[in-house]
Amino acid sequence: MLRSCAARLHALGALRGLPGAARPPARSPGPARRSLFLEADFHKDSSLPKPSWSKDMRLLFDQFMKKCEDGSWTRLPFYSYKAVQNVHDFIAFIHGSLPSTAKLVDKEQLSQAQIFTESFKDGLGFEYVMFYNDAEKRTVCLFQGGPHLQGMPGFLHGGAVATMIDATVGMSAIKAEGLVMTANLNINFKRPVPLCSVVVINSHLDKTEGRKLFISCDVRSVDETTLYSEATSLFIKLDPEKNS
Amino acid sequence: MLRSCAARLHALGALRGLPGAARPPARSPGPARRSLFLEADFHKDSSLPKPSWSKDMRLLFDQFMKKCEDGSWTRLPFYSYKAVQNVHDFIAFIHGSLPSTAKLVDKEQLSQAQIFTESFKDGLGFEYVMFYNDAEKRTVCLFQGGPHLQGMPGFLHGGAVATMIDATVGMSAIKAEGLVMTANLNINFKRPVPLCSVVVINSHLDKTEGRKLFISCDVRSVDETTLYSEATSLFIKLDPEKNS
Repeated sequence: MLRSCAARLHALGALRGLPGAARPPARSPGPARRSLFLEADFHKDSSLPKPSWSKDMRLLFDQFMKKCEDGSWTRLPFYSYKAVQNVHDFIAFIHGSLPSTAKLVDKEQLSQAQIFTESFKDGLGFEYVMFYNDAEKRTVCLFQGGPHLQGMPGFLHGGAVATMIDATVGMSAIKAEGLVMTANLNINFKRPVPLCSVVVINSHLDKTEGRKLFISCDVRSVDETTLYSEATSLFIKLDPEKNS
Repeated sequence: MLRSCAARLHALGALRGLPGAARPPARSPGPARRSLFLEADFHKDSSLPKPSWSKDMRLLFDQFMKKCEDGSWTRLPFYSYKAVQNVHDFIAFIHGSLPSTAKLVDKEQLSQAQIFTESFKDGLGFEYVMFYNDAEKRTVCLFQGGPHLQGMPGFLHGGAVATMIDATVGMSAIKAEGLVMTANLNINFKRPVPLCSVVVINSHLDKTEGRKLFISCDVRSVDETTLYSEATSLFIKLDPEKNS
């Protein structure tokens, strides 16, 4: 739907530009660029194996790392950011893009801010790693949903599944076009995902039409026999230079 | 889509049956009923005002409590559950409904389980309260998204917004038909929601067709002038007696 295009800016090229982004060059970026991108903590890559990862998660990780050896796939590191430096510039940019967006968040609240998918202790929340295949325009997310993501007893909350779908299709959009915004997310829930199990979210850039990107994905069990969910999404490419 | 009807069982009549459910009678429920419903902690209603609620949240809460005085609206309490008692019965019921659902979660993992929207410290995650108008088949959720739900800097993660939309339309479905499952959730994101702000999620049962329930909602600022998101959903009514 066209009206959904004047939509939510999703931080994808900014906050989400951090996962999968190449480590930045040592030289300082230009001023326009610095005002949009945050200071990441390049010492902590949260997409590397942890003790809390299950056997399934480790096996799949190893399989994908094997696929990376010939260069067809690459692992996308995830660097969380610490400093609030430049955040107000970023928020001003968003407000510049969407002037009717309401009040700004204050400095004290920002100092407590944490990225949603990173705000749980290891093993309790969102454990995930993404891999990208540029030739196929495909992003795969290996996702282990921890016990604090429970919806009905013994299963993941639908919102937690939606969150990781959103993150994965968003990553496909970033890798294709850089700074983007989500306009639509349409999810069919087929089966509940067992708590603490590992699922594979496989997303694909279906087509682009001008500034629109159409990306679909499915969520399957490790052995691919169980289809848990499938989704389509629409992203809009932004031009950061316009507002800098 | 019809195929999406054989979809995800959503705990709505079970786990989500707790919010808004009348306090149970003192007498013991029948065995079939006991096997599906959990033991709630009726001493802790997390939908009551807390020190972490902002001024906007308290003002809106007071306004809706006023609307409750003539009985047209009712506040829906939210009782979290503590015990894992009966959880395995519940999981077995889900697996009975959807036999191809994969492995069961083990007892140790279940002992760590927490409801996703309740797994943050006060003020950091999902702060919300719901009100219901039976005559209008309308559920309103007042939602304050804390600093640990951040997506792009200064704004809520799209997955956190999707989570509360899912919870609110789900509540409309429960109040209308009891035990239900989500089949589809389709969200148009219009504008990013500022972190720590309060939004109003207004959901409405549009129509029922046999076992299908069509529910829509929008997410607006407190003064209703800013439309952040709008969504449609499809739920399927289940018959718990079939599997008990």
